[in-house]
Order: sequence, then structure tokens, then C-alpha cells
Amino acid sequence: MSHAAATLMRAARPMVVAGTLGLLLLVLAALSAVPAIVSLVLGDTGLEWRLFGVAALELLLGTLLVRLPRPDDIQWNEALAVTGLAFLLAAGAMVWPLMGNEIGALDAWFEAVSGVTTTGLTTLRDMAERPAGFLFLRAWMQWYGGLGIAVLTVALIMRHHASGRRLLETTGESLTHASARDHARRVLLVYLGLTGLAVFGVWMSGLAPFQALLHGLAAVATGGFAASDRNIAPLPPVSVAVLSAICLAAAVSLPLYAQLWRKGPRALLGEPDVRALIASAVVTAALLALIGVTLDGVAWPRALADGLVQSISAQTDTGFSTVDIAALPAASQLVLIVSMTIGGCTGSTAGGIKLIRLLILIRLVQLALRRTAVSERAVLGANVGTARIEPDAVAAALQLLGLWALVLILSWFVFLLHGVAPLASLFEVASATANAGLSAGLTGPDLAPLLKVVLSVDMLLGRVEILALLVLLYYPTWFGRRRAS
Amino acid sequence: MSHAAATLMRAARPMVVAGTLGLLLLVLAALSAVPAIVSLVLGDTGLEWRLFGVAALELLLGTLLVRLPRPDDIQWNEALAVTGLAFLLAAGAMVWPLMGNEIGALDAWFEAVSGVTTTGLTTLRDMAERPAGFLFLRAWMQWYGGLGIAVLTVALIMRHHASGRRLLETTGESLTHASARDHARRVLLVYLGLTGLAVFGVWMSGLAPFQALLHGLAAVATGGFAASDRNIAPLPPVSVAVLSAICLAAAVSLPLYAQLWRKGPRALLGEPDVRALIASAVVTAALLALIGVTLDGVAWPRALADGLVQSISAQTDTGFSTVDIAALPAASQLVLIVSMTIGGCTGSTAGGIKLIRLLILIRLVQLALRRTAVSERAVLGANVGTARIEPDAVAAALQLLGLWALVLILSWFVFLLHGVAPLASLFEVASATANAGLSAGLTGPDLAPLLKVVLSVDMLLGRVEILALLVLLYYPTWFGRRRAS
Ligand SMILES: [K+]
Ligand SMILES: [K+]
Repeated sequence: MSHAAATLMRAARPMVVAGTLGLLLLVLAALSAVPAIVSLVLGDTGLEWRLFGVAALELLLGTLLVRLPRPDDIQWNEALAVTGLAFLLAAGAMVWPLMGNEIGALDAWFEAVSGVTTTGLTTLRDMAERPAGFLFLRAWMQWYGGLGIAVLTVALIMRHHASGRRLLETTGESLTHASARDHARRVLLVYLGLTGLAVFGVWMSGLAPFQALLHGLAAVATGGFAASDRNIAPLPPVSVAVLSAICLAAAVSLPLYAQLWRKGPRALLGEPDVRALIASAVVTAALLALIGVTLDGVAWPRALADGLVQSISAQTDTGFSTVDIAALPAASQLVLIVSMTIGGCTGSTAGGIKLIRLLILIRLVQLALRRTAVSERAVLGANVGTARIEPDAVAAALQLLGLWALVLILSWFVFLLHGVAPLASLFEVASATANAGLSAGLTGPDLAPLLKVVLSVDMLLGRVEILALLVLLYYPTWFGRRRAS
Repeated sequence: MSHAAATLMRAARPMVVAGTLGLLLLVLAALSAVPAIVSLVLGDTGLEWRLFGVAALELLLGTLLVRLPRPDDIQWNEALAVTGLAFLLAAGAMVWPLMGNEIGALDAWFEAVSGVTTTGLTTLRDMAERPAGFLFLRAWMQWYGGLGIAVLTVALIMRHHASGRRLLETTGESLTHASARDHARRVLLVYLGLTGLAVFGVWMSGLAPFQALLHGLAAVATGGFAASDRNIAPLPPVSVAVLSAICLAAAVSLPLYAQLWRKGPRALLGEPDVRALIASAVVTAALLALIGVTLDGVAWPRALADGLVQSISAQTDTGFSTVDIAALPAASQLVLIVSMTIGGCTGSTAGGIKLIRLLILIRLVQLALRRTAVSERAVLGANVGTARIEPDAVAAALQLLGLWALVLILSWFVFLLHGVAPLASLFEVASATANAGLSAGLTGPDLAPLLKVVLSVDMLLGRVEILALLVLLYYPTWFGRRRAS
């Protein structure tokens, strides 16, 4: 780094980070009170008082911290640090309440991380025998985890990040603090609306109201927790179809829904990454069906139906499943690994590397081929849809792809050191990092403790696209010159 | 694509491609005559006359085609098409001669591709019983394959490609046709010099002259064919050490050696990717040794020695081995997969994605972290060594990384469809694509024919960094407006 650049660097202001976290703690206190009340009403023992205790602590801490100054000009490292810490805090706060359901500390941590990151992997069994309040808490963690992703990213990161700013600009607004706040409010309304539709739709499909609530919350957050050890396999086919539709809707950039009344279906179907989402899900389903028919002798209609459910679940990184993934042919598991890792659309609760990066990659390859046929002095540009691919977006895509590969390889390496089956290991690691939640059978009570830790770290890293957690470990984030706060 | 860009596009001129291939055929004729004479002297039956036949055919065709016009201003798509076709031609020409040694057509094709791409995978067994002329032919194919990579890339591609041009510019020359030719001549001299040193060094290490020749040629080309089914495991430790040193030397950008007399050791050790080569090999060796000691109970000195030999072989994509890779722990195999895929330095005979792309990636991550701490209006740049990372290099790295991942995933998918073991499949596919040649035991006479085809395609794709073969399949390369030739 040059000296000139070094003098431009500003460490994060601890007071600003703490103050913003204080506001967040107040929100978390309100969010923690909901399952506490539900548990109280449904008559659980142990869970509700722990939840009230956590809510009270969050309220106390939040009230203290929120008095700290929160200037309008929050720095990017501060925004990223708050995002990283928010997920750590939200998960950490639920460990002790979850332990009230006779769960060890590590499994409670795993479940909490899996919940707030909307991953949906679980090391717990006998889910059908667990109390209703506990099941609600799991669904609720996913729901507000999804809310966090949808709203926090807009409110904190987008106005600091060039590509995020462009997302705001597509709605025709200028980039003021107020407009980012409006935008976050609009996303919140979309999320609430989708949630209402989801729960109502699942209820109409024939599930009991409480089951509809559990699955509707898990679907709209692309979370994937279910109320059975066989995931959603026991649900009637109509409910499975409705849930799949909700997952697909939730994997689309949420701000687009705010344009539906003005632009009509074009608001969604005109977007390249929405089309890519549908195309990827269809290709994945076709591959799964083809493998099922040829290698496993499944009949075509069944193979197509199963293929579509699993492919939508993988592509949207929801993690619902109606078949035993561990029993699928190795080739099908590889297809799912790729689908989960690519993931859904930016601005949604879906995980993975995101389809926009795949589109950028495809355009760059097309551009490279086209360039072979023109004089190198001719300047060619590439677009995704109507948006020009800027050098910054290319660098960001390469950096994310590289970091993602590094996380997968390192995590896989630890699994292999433990002597676990290679493909199932890669599947589990890819699923956790993409916040997908499908499991090839390794994630369960018997998974080695270190591997549970690895998967929980993967879930957190994937959820914040790695950078927000790296920022927490980056020395200049905390040490160096800072502005007066 | 915009209309303006389309009108700038120029299809390749078939006469120019054919004329350049004519020149290449004349070189191939001379190169084919060498093993023919060696076989004649050593007294093989069958092989020598087939080789003379091929040489004669190449001479005839070359003489006819070389009369076609070869303008100085060869287009980039023409240069890439020639490169892609050159490897197909060079491999194809050796199929019939190889079949003279009682080898089926597919195995002969596999061996020829493995040879000219300097990969070193082989489906043949009983190597110790094969005639000397046959062993020489294999070593020779690798040697001139390496020559082709070193010289062709400079002569044809580099002056058309921005990053290649920069490589030329580091030697302080301007970009004329003549300087590119000078440059190619210099690389040729370096390659010949290294070859002489290699053969002499291996001979001095205690091998018989003919064995020294076989292994010296395979090492300098980072080829990896050996004269035993146990690869170089039967060789004395001193010879193994000398071979490792040669591989390391051959994985360094060859033009740098031309600066040795002027700059001293700094010409090599001052280069970021040479330092990265050494660092990667050391890290890989340490990981292999650590796993060997902890999981397999190997003693430290032995584990370090084995680790170093296998790591240098993997990092330089040579493919020599002194241990049974299939018997290594899964974690060690993953380490080798990563090492092979990263590979050596640009401008050498090594394969893989190349270390410079890893360095670009590391710098981009550093830059992304640094940017979180500065105002986004501040412009930060990133360097590798003294060279600035241009947006084009970032786009090229992303495009190569994406295509490489696609090739690995598709090939792995075909292997998994055949029910082959997952990790060994990935190892074989990664090794072939990186032109490394280490094998986890799948590549042999019993490998399914389709999988032999997949690996041979992988070797060709990896050798030309994918694009040069894609260009052959790209419609506008052959159809559309073209300049008068
Ligand atoms: K999920
Ligand atoms: K090799």
C-alpha cells in the first residue's frame, strides 16, 4: 500500500459501532419477546423464561448503547463490522434459550447460527416430539434472520457499495440517507406481505394453522427448517408445491416487488437474474430427473416432480427436501452442490454466490471470444441486461469467487482429515456456505464437534459474503487514525 | 452485441491458418524424423517406418501449405485457432505410429495427447518391457510439446494479447514482429540450454545415459512420463532430487533466464510469481508431511522428503511421483489437487491456472479489505510486484477461473455418472486439466473408454487455457466478413 493510501484509511469508531449495535439490540429484544410470549401461551417449560431473560438483557444493553452518537456518515468498515457482529450477536443470544430444550451448548449454537443465517441444517433429531414453542422459535429465528439480510443489507451496506447503490438507483431515487431508509422500509413491507401470503397459502394448501405458520416462515426466509426429521417429505404434495412457489418468490430481489404495481410482471421477468433463476432451476431439475430415470430407474413423472422440488430448494438455497439426499446418485449430489453454490438473486434472502456473478462470468467469456475476432484497439463492453459490467463488479466477483473457493476447500480439508466420505463432506460444506441447508446425511447428532464448528463458521461466512467477517479480523478496522465520532 | 462491434469483427482467413499450419507441419516433420531415426538405430520393429511415413506426410503437406500467404498481421483468432489446431495435429499425427507398439487406437490417442500436452498420464502398463525406441518417442513428444508451449505462445499469442505484450515489454523491447521472433528464438535457446543441463545433470546423478535422456526430457518439459509403472519411485534418491530441481527450474518463466547474465539471481528471485512458486511448493510439502506424520504415522524425515518431491511435482505440474498417490490420505489428495490446479509460472511449460492469477486474487482481496477503510471516492490501485493490475487482467483471470471450474465440474460429473470413486475422479480430472499427470489410480488400461476421452479433452483444454479450443468452435471464427488475405 502506498503511503498516500494509508493516510486515507480510517479505523472504525467503536462508539459508532456500539451505538448502531445498540439500536439493533432493541430490535432483537422485541424479536426475542415474540417467541417468549408464544412459548408462554403454548405452555412450554424452561424456554419462555430464558427468552424473556434474553429479551430483558437485550433491552437493557440496547437502551444503554443506543444513547451513543450515531452519525449519518457511517463508514463502510463500520457498516460491515455491524453486519458481521449482528449475525454473531443474534445467534449468540439464542444459545442459552435453546439449551432449555435439553440441547448441548454446541448443538444450540449450531441451531442458532443455522436459524439466523437462514441455512436450515440441524444436528437435532426427534423433531416431531419437540414442544411447539421450540419449533416456533426455530422458524422465528429464520424469519428474522431473513428480515435482517433483506433490510440490513439495504440500510447499512448498499448505500456504501457501488453495486448496491446502483440497485437503489434503478428505482429512480437519489442517494440520500433518507432514501436508503425509505428503501429499507419498502423491503420490510414486501417481506411482511410475502410472509402473510406464504402462511395463508400454506394454510389453504391443507396444513393445520400452526404447521402453516412454521413452514410459511421457513419458506419466505428461504430457511428450510421443517417440523419433521424427514424435512417436508411427510407434507401433502399440494403443500410442497405451494412451499416451492414461495421459495422461488422469496429468492427474487425483494425491491423488485415494489415495482410490480407500476410495471407489471415485467418488473420481475424483465430482470436477467430472475430469468437466470428460473432457467437454472429448470436445468437443475432436468438433470436430476434424467439421472433419477437412468441411474435409479425412477419413473419419469415422479423423477420430474422430485427433481423440480429439490432443484427449486437448492437454487433458492432454501433446503426443503422430499427425498433422502444421501441416497441420491453421486452425480445428482454434484448437480445440487453446483446449484446451491450459485444460489439465488442479490437483494433476496437466498444465499450462494448469486446468479448475477454467473451472468457476469458468462458475459465475460462471450466478450473474450468476441475480442478474438476484432482488432485489439476496438473497445468492446459487456452488459448484463441494460446494466454495463463495471471493472469494480468484475473485481468483486473474482474476489468473492476466490474467497468462496478458499472457504470450501479449507472446510472440506478439515472434513477429509476426519476421514469423512469425500462427496458427502463437500456437499455439507457447500450447503452450509451457501446457506442452503440440504444435507447428504452427515449433519446430525453424531457429527464430530470440530466439524459442527466448521459448518457454523461456513454458514456465517456465506451469509455475509465473507467480507463482513474478514473485516472484523482485519487489523486496520480497529487500529489506526479515526475520525472524531 | 452492438451493431458497431459486429461490423468490427473479422473471421479467420482459412488460407492464413492453413499457411501457418504448413510451416508448423514442416517443423513437425523434422521433429517426427528424430524418433524414427532413434527407433531405426535402436532396432525396433514397426515403430520406425510408421514414424518415417508420418514425417513424409507432414513434409508433403507442409510443403504444399507453406506456399500460402502468411501475412505479418495475423489476427488473434487466427493465432488462437492455429495454436488449438497445432496441438490436435501434433497429437493426431502420433496415433498411428504409437499403435505400432500393440496399442489400441484410443490408448494411442490418449498417450499422444498426454505427451504433446506434457501431461504425463498414461493408460499403458508394463512400461519396463516396452522397446527403447517407444520410450524415447514418449519422452520426445513431451519435449517438443513443451517446446511448442514455450515458443508458440510467444510467437503467436503474446504479441496479440495485452498481458503477453507486457511480458515482452519487461525485456525492454518494443512490439515489432521482429522482436517477437527474437523473443521466441531466445526462449528456444533457453529451452535447449535447460535440456542440455537437465540430461547432463540426471546422467551425473547416476542414471545410465539413455535413462538420463528419457527423464531429462520429461523433466524439462514438466512432462512426467517415466520408464516404469511406478513412475520415478525406482530411481536413486539423488536422481529424484536432481529431477525435482529441474522441474522447478522449468516451471519458471523461460524468458527470465535470458536476463540472468545481466541481472543475476534477482532476475528470477525478484519476480513475484517465482517467489510464489517456491512458497506454494513449500506450503504444499509441509501440509503433505504433516498429514503423513499424523494420519499415516510416517517418520518426519521421510515425510518431509516425500512431501517435497510430490509437492514440487504437483506445483510445477510435472507429475513425477515416488509414492502411490492412491494410497495417500484423502486430505493429502485434496492438497495435491489444489496445488496442481494452481500450477506454475506463465511463460513456462508448467500447466494449471498459473500463480499470477492467484497473486491477482490475493491482491484483490487485500484491496477490497483496504477499501472498507477509505472513502469510496479515493482511488486505490493494486500491483503484483511493480506491475499494475489492469481491469483486463482481472477479467481474464475471472473468465479463466470460471471456465476452468466449468471444465472440472462437467468432467467430474461424467466420472460420477460412471460410478467411479468421487475424490479419485476429481483428482484425475484436475490432474489432466492442469497437465500435471499425477494419478490417484484411475487412469489405466481399465478406465472406461468415454472417461479416457474426457481426460484427453481436459488435457487439450487445459494446455491452451481453454480459449484457443473454444475459438475453434466459435461460429464467428469461421463465418463472417474477412479481410483479403
Ligand atoms: K436455507
Ligand atoms: K505433467
